[in-house]
Amino acid sequence: MKNHIGIAEKLNRESILRSGGALLRSRPNCRIGIERESLRCTACGMLSEAVHPASLGGKDDNPYITTDWAESQIELITPPCESPAAAHRFLEMLTDIVLRELAPRQELLWPLSTPCRLPDAERIACARFEEAAENTRRRKLREKYPVEMLLLSGIHCNFSFTDEFLRRIADGADRKAVREAGYLKTARNLQRLLWFAVGLLGASPAGTTGISVRNSSAGYKSACSAQLDYTSVAAYCESVNRCLETGLIAAPSELYTPVRLRFSEKPTGGPVEINRLELRFIDLNPFEKCGISAADLELLRLLLFHCLLTGESELERFSEDFETVAENGFTPGQREKAAELLKQLGETARLLHVEIPGALEGAAGRLHCPEHSYAERIRKAGTLSPEWLRRAETYRDDALAEAWRLPGFDELELSTQCMIREAVKGGIHFEVISREDNILRLRKGTRREYVVQATRTSLDTYVTPLLMNNKLVSKMLLREHGIHTPDGIELRPDDDLADRLRPFIGKRAVVKPVSTNYGIGISVFEHPATEEQLREAVRLAAGFDRHILVEEFCPGREFRFLVIAGKTFAVTFRRACHVVGDGVSTIHELIERANRHPWRAPGHHRPLVTIVEDEAMRQHLALQALDFGSVIPAGEDIPLRRISNISAGGEACDATELMPERFKRIAERAAAAFDAVICGVDIIIPEPLGPGSSYAVIEANFNPALLIHEFPFEGKSRPAARQVLIALGLLDD
Amino acid sequence: MKNHIGIAEKLNRESILRSGGALLRSRPNCRIGIERESLRCTACGMLSEAVHPASLGGKDDNPYITTDWAESQIELITPPCESPAAAHRFLEMLTDIVLRELAPRQELLWPLSTPCRLPDAERIACARFEEAAENTRRRKLREKYPVEMLLLSGIHCNFSFTDEFLRRIADGADRKAVREAGYLKTARNLQRLLWFAVGLLGASPAGTTGISVRNSSAGYKSACSAQLDYTSVAAYCESVNRCLETGLIAAPSELYTPVRLRFSEKPTGGPVEINRLELRFIDLNPFEKCGISAADLELLRLLLFHCLLTGESELERFSEDFETVAENGFTPGQREKAAELLKQLGETARLLHVEIPGALEGAAGRLHCPEHSYAERIRKAGTLSPEWLRRAETYRDDALAEAWRLPGFDELELSTQCMIREAVKGGIHFEVISREDNILRLRKGTRREYVVQATRTSLDTYVTPLLMNNKLVSKMLLREHGIHTPDGIELRPDDDLADRLRPFIGKRAVVKPVSTNYGIGISVFEHPATEEQLREAVRLAAGFDRHILVEEFCPGREFRFLVIAGKTFAVTFRRACHVVGDGVSTIHELIERANRHPWRAPGHHRPLVTIVEDEAMRQHLALQALDFGSVIPAGEDIPLRRISNISAGGEACDATELMPERFKRIAERAAAAFDAVICGVDIIIPEPLGPGSSYAVIEANFNPALLIHEFPFEGKSRPAARQVLIALGLLDD
Repeated sequence: MKNHIGIAEKLNRESILRSGGALLRSRPNCRIGIERESLRCTACGMLSEAVHPASLGGKDDNPYITTDWAESQIELITPPCESPAAAHRFLEMLTDIVLRELAPRQELLWPLSTPCRLPDAERIACARFEEAAENTRRRKLREKYPVEMLLLSGIHCNFSFTDEFLRRIADGADRKAVREAGYLKTARNLQRLLWFAVGLLGASPAGTTGISVRNSSAGYKSACSAQLDYTSVAAYCESVNRCLETGLIAAPSELYTPVRLRFSEKPTGGPVEINRLELRFIDLNPFEKCGISAADLELLRLLLFHCLLTGESELERFSEDFETVAENGFTPGQREKAAELLKQLGETARLLHVEIPGALEGAAGRLHCPEHSYAERIRKAGTLSPEWLRRAETYRDDALAEAWRLPGFDELELSTQCMIREAVKGGIHFEVISREDNILRLRKGTRREYVVQATRTSLDTYVTPLLMNNKLVSKMLLREHGIHTPDGIELRPDDDLADRLRPFIGKRAVVKPVSTNYGIGISVFEHPATEEQLREAVRLAAGFDRHILVEEFCPGREFRFLVIAGKTFAVTFRRACHVVGDGVSTIHELIERANRHPWRAPGHHRPLVTIVEDEAMRQHLALQALDFGSVIPAGEDIPLRRISNISAGGEACDATELMPERFKRIAERAAAAFDAVICGVDIIIPEPLGPGSSYAVIEANFNPALLIHEFPFEGKSRPAARQVLIALGLLDD
Repeated sequence: MKNHIGIAEKLNRESILRSGGALLRSRPNCRIGIERESLRCTACGMLSEAVHPASLGGKDDNPYITTDWAESQIELITPPCESPAAAHRFLEMLTDIVLRELAPRQELLWPLSTPCRLPDAERIACARFEEAAENTRRRKLREKYPVEMLLLSGIHCNFSFTDEFLRRIADGADRKAVREAGYLKTARNLQRLLWFAVGLLGASPAGTTGISVRNSSAGYKSACSAQLDYTSVAAYCESVNRCLETGLIAAPSELYTPVRLRFSEKPTGGPVEINRLELRFIDLNPFEKCGISAADLELLRLLLFHCLLTGESELERFSEDFETVAENGFTPGQREKAAELLKQLGETARLLHVEIPGALEGAAGRLHCPEHSYAERIRKAGTLSPEWLRRAETYRDDALAEAWRLPGFDELELSTQCMIREAVKGGIHFEVISREDNILRLRKGTRREYVVQATRTSLDTYVTPLLMNNKLVSKMLLREHGIHTPDGIELRPDDDLADRLRPFIGKRAVVKPVSTNYGIGISVFEHPATEEQLREAVRLAAGFDRHILVEEFCPGREFRFLVIAGKTFAVTFRRACHVVGDGVSTIHELIERANRHPWRAPGHHRPLVTIVEDEAMRQHLALQALDFGSVIPAGEDIPLRRISNISAGGEACDATELMPERFKRIAERAAAAFDAVICGVDIIIPEPLGPGSSYAVIEANFNPALLIHEFPFEGKSRPAARQVLIALGLLDD
C-alpha cells in the first residue's frame, strides 16, 4: 500500500517534463473505446416494437453492434482506439451503418438519453439472446428497476493508459505496480471531479434545475456506489464482495457506478489486473449524430491525464458532490472552481504537447453561459419535442447521403469499405493491417482470413491470377474448356506484318497490346479494316507493348459476370457517359447537371467519376455533328464517348436478372478454367439477349470490382462484399 | 476406295500453289516425335549389367524415358513437336539429362545401332516392368529372336500432318476421308522410296557391302512385312489380322515393318483412324550425340511431304528393293535415280517455301562420295572400335559442361529449367504454356498443376505473396509469431525528421526505401551514425520510395533459408565476389581469371554472373588501399564488393548442414506466419554460428530462387526443384 502511494506520487507533472514532454505526440499513450446505447424509434418517435434487425448480425457475438437491456435499445461498441478522434470516427461509422440499415424499416435512433414516447410497459420487450443467462439477467433487472430507468441510455467510455506511457513516466518501477497505482489514483481523483464532468456534459434534464437525471440520486445506479473502496485492488475487490454478500447487487455487472474499475480476464491462476477505467456518467448529446462530440471526448481524455498527473491533496481541494450538481447544476462557487479546473486542464494540455481543438473553449462557453449548456437547451425544447425527431431524421439523411463512405476508413478503396461494412454487420472482427495496400484481417471464432483489396483472398491460389494475367495462356485455357474466345493472332516484333495481317484485311477486327488496361492503345474496327488501317493500329499498340494481339471483332455489349465460389452472383454492363436533352440546355450544361449527381466526383472515392469534357469527347460529338454548345431536343439520348470505363465517366447497370442462365453457366465454366473462386468474367453478347445468342469471352479478371455490383447506377444493388465473406466461411449464407 | 484415290489425287503440288504456297511457313503443318533406343555401356564399352537408374523414374509410366527390350536398352521419347528442329532439341535435352544421370555411375550411351561388347547371353536381362504383360512379351521375344537382333537399336520417328494442313490442300473434302487417303498415299509412296532413305541414312554396316544390317533381310523385322496391304484401312487391318491368325506375329506391336501405320485409340464404338506414320528404319548415327542430325530429320520430313504431294505413278518409276540397298549400298543406276529424287525434293522444298539448311546438301555429299556415308565411315573404323567409346565420352562431357542448361528450353529461367529436368526424370508430363512468363503445366495421373517461375504454385494462396510484399505487414506478422525482426520506424513524407530520427542517432542503423530490391537506395551504418549521416541516407532512400524504413543494424551474415511445406530444405549464404592472390597477378588479372569460370557469364543464363570492374569496386578496393593494378600476395583473399548479390558477381555457398537446428525452426515459423508453403526466409546471424546466437529475420520472400541451392558455388547441391514437385504431390518423397 505504501509502495502504491509512492508510485502514485511519482506519476506527476515533473515526470512528464523529465521525459521530454512530447510523449503524447510521438506515440499513442492511451486507448479509448466507446459504447453508445440508443433507443430505436419509429418515424413518429414511438419506441420501436420490432425485433433487432437480423441484418445487423447476432446480438450474442457481434463485437460492434448488440442490444442493451431492451430489444429496441441498440448498443454500438468501438474497439479500443489510439485517440479520441479515432474512437469518434469509428463510432460515427457504426452509427452510419446502423442508420442505413434502419432507414428502409422507417426507424430512427432516438437522440436523447431520456426515452422517446413509450408504449404500455408490457409491450416493451427485454432483449432476447441465445444465451439463457443474458435473458435471465435482463428479467431480474426488470423486476428490480423501473422500465424508464432501464431505458435511460448513455455513453460509456473505456479508457486505458498504454503500458509504455506508464512505464516511462514512472521511471523504472514494476509494471504491475505502476498500472495499479496509476489507475487507482486516476479513479480516486476522478471521483473528486465527477461533479465537474457531469456539470459540463449533463444532457438529461429533469424538472426545472436537473441537468442529468442519469447521474442524479434517482438515476441509473445501484445502491452500492458509496460502499466502494478505491485505495487498493484488494480493498476494492473486498468492497465489491460486501455489496454482493449483502445483496445490494446480484452480479459485478450490476455495478452501476459512474466510474468502474475494469480488470483483465483472470490469467490462469494469477490475480486479476486493472486494465482500464470505464466512465459511465456520460449522457447522450442529442446535438451530435454520434451522441457525443469529438471535442468532449478530447476533454475527457485530458481530464483523465490530469487526474493521473495531479496530486490527490491538490484535487481534494476541488471535491464536490456530483449528484447535487446533476440535480441542480453548478452553484456560482462551483462555476468558479470549474473555471479554475479548466485552466489547469489547459496547462496539462500544454505540458503534454497536445492540441485539443475546441474542447476547452467549448466547455468554457457552456460553463460561463449556462443557456448554452446541453441540458438547458434540451430543457428549453422539452425532452419529447418534435425537434428531436427532426434531428434524428437529419442524422439518418446524413448517413444515407454518402452510403458508400465509412467515416474513418474513407481513404480506403470503396470495395474495401464495403467489406468492412459487411464485417461490422456480420459481427466479424476486422483490423486494417495496411491502409495503403487495403489489407484487412478478419476474425470470427477460430477462423482468421486476410483480404486484400476486397477480392484477393486465400480462396484463390497463387497461380490463378498469374495465369489470368497472361492473355495468351488465358485464351488457351478457355478454349481447352470449350469456351469461345475471339479468334486472333499474337504479333511479335520481328513478324512479317503483311503475311500475318492478311487474314484480317477486309474484316472487322480489334488490335491491342497484349498487356493493356483501361482500354489504352486499343483500336476497334467495327467496319471492315484496310491493311493500312490495321498497320496504323499496330503502330499505335506497339507504343504500349512489344507484343500485340489482332483479333476478330465480336459485336455486342460487354457484360461483367461476377463469379463467386462457382456461382454467377451478379451481372452488370457499363454504359458510356451520356446526356438526355431537354430542348433548351446545351450539351455543356447537361454535362454540368449530370456532374452534380452526388455519386460523381473526380478520382475513385465515389461510385461514379466526373464527366470531363476533353478532346476525345469533342471528336465523338463531332461524329454526331454536335459540339458542346449544341442544344439537344427533349428526350434525345446523346452518347458522349465510345468507351464505357467507369474512370471515363461510364455508368454501371445491373443486368443480373435479365441475363439468360446459359451465359451465367459459361461465366462459371470460364472461372473454373483457372480454378478461380472469385473472378470477374467479361463476355460480349449481341443484343437483344437470348439464350441462343452468340458470345465471346474476352477475359477473366482476378481482382474484380465489387462496387459496380454494390452501387449500380441503374438496377438492383447486389451485396457482393457479403457474398465474398460467405465464400470465406465468415458468414452463413 | 474410288473416293480415296480421288482425294489422294487432289493432294498434289498444284493444291499447294493454289493455297498460296506459304503454308509450311505460317503455321506448323506437321508433328514429329522421336524415339531413340541406345544401349547403356560401361566405361570400357561393355553392355551395362546395372539396372535402369531409379533416378530416371518408373519405366512403366515415364513418358520420356523408359527401356526397350533389354534392361540396359534405354529409350528416349519426345512428344510430338512442331518441327524437326524442335523435336531434335527435345531429344538433345533428354539425351543430356540421361548422360548427366549416367555420368556418376561411370556409364555411357553406346552410339551405334549395332551392340557394344556383350557379356554371356544369360547375363543380359530383359527390362523388368511393373506390368506383368510387358515382362511376358519380352520373354517371348527372347525365345523367338536372337539376342543380338533384339539389342540392335535405332530411331523411330512418328510423323503426322496437321488436320488443318490436309484440309486446306484437299479443298473441302471430308476430314476423315482426307486423313485416310493422305496417310495411305504417303505410306505407299514411302514404300517405293525406302531404298533411297535407307541408302542415305544406313549406319549399321555388315560385311564388306552392307550399310544397314537393321534393314537387311537379316535385320530387325517380323516376317509379315510383305503381307501388308496399304490400299485402304480396311485392307490393311485385314492383312494384319491374317498375320496374327497365321501366327507370323503374336501381337500388332510386333509389326516390325520399316513404315507402320499408327491408329488413334479406338474412340468408343467408332472405327479407328490413322493418326500418324511410324518410320522404323532409321539407324543410330554415331557421329551425332542424339543419334540423328537435325538435317536428316528435315530430310525425312521433306520426303514425307514429297510422298504426300507426288502422284503414285510418278514415284512408281523410282521404286527399288530397299533390302538389297541395305545389303549392298546403291548401284550406279540407283545413285542416278537418288540424285534425281534429291532434285525433286529440292523443288518440293521451294514449293513449300521451307528452308532446310544443309539437309539436301549433306545428303547429296554422302550420295556422290560414298566414303562420306555414315556406313562407310563406321565400317572403316570397325563397329567395336575404341573410337565409339571416345565419342560416347565426348557426348557425356558435352552434356556435363553446362549442367544447368536444357537444350530447347534455354531461354527459360534457370530454375524453370531445373523444374523441367526433374519433371522429365520423374516421368511428369510437362508443357511450357508461356515461355515469356515461365509457366509450366505439369500432369501425372489425374493430378494437374501449374507452376510459374518454378516456385509460384497452387500450394500458396493469393494473399500470401501480397502480405509478404508489404514490409510493415510482414514485420507485424513475424512479431506476432514471436520472431525477432530489426526494430525500426517507418518515415512518411511529412514526418518531423529531427523528432523521428532521434532514437537512431549515435546507433548502428540501416536506412532503406520500403519497397526495395537488389539493395538499391540502402545505407548501412555498421558504426554509430550521426544525425547528418542519417538525414543524408533518408535523402538517398527518398529517391526510390515515398516511405522509408529506419532500422537498427543487426550485425552478422545473412542466410537464405528455403522452406518447403513446413520444413527448412536448404540454407545458403552469399559471399561477395573476391579474388585470392598468387603473388604475381594483379587484381585485374585475377578478376579476368575468375571470369573464365564456366559458371560465369553476363546476364542470368548461368549460375553466376561476370565480375564487372566498376566505380563501386574501385572505391571498395581503395578502402583497402588497393587498386586494380595491385599485386596480391599468394593466398590472400581480397573482397571486391560489400554487397553479395549474385547479380553483382556474388557467390552462393551451401550451409544446410552447418546451420543449427534452432534457426531452421525459426525460418519454418516465419514461413508459417504467412501460411506460406514455398518461402525463402532471410535471417541475419552473427558468426561463429551457435544455437544460442542472436538473430534477426529480415524478410520472407514469395518467389525464392532455387538456383542458389541447386548450383551452389561451394558446398553440396540441394535438389530444390525436386522438393517442390514432391510438395505438389507429383513425385513421391
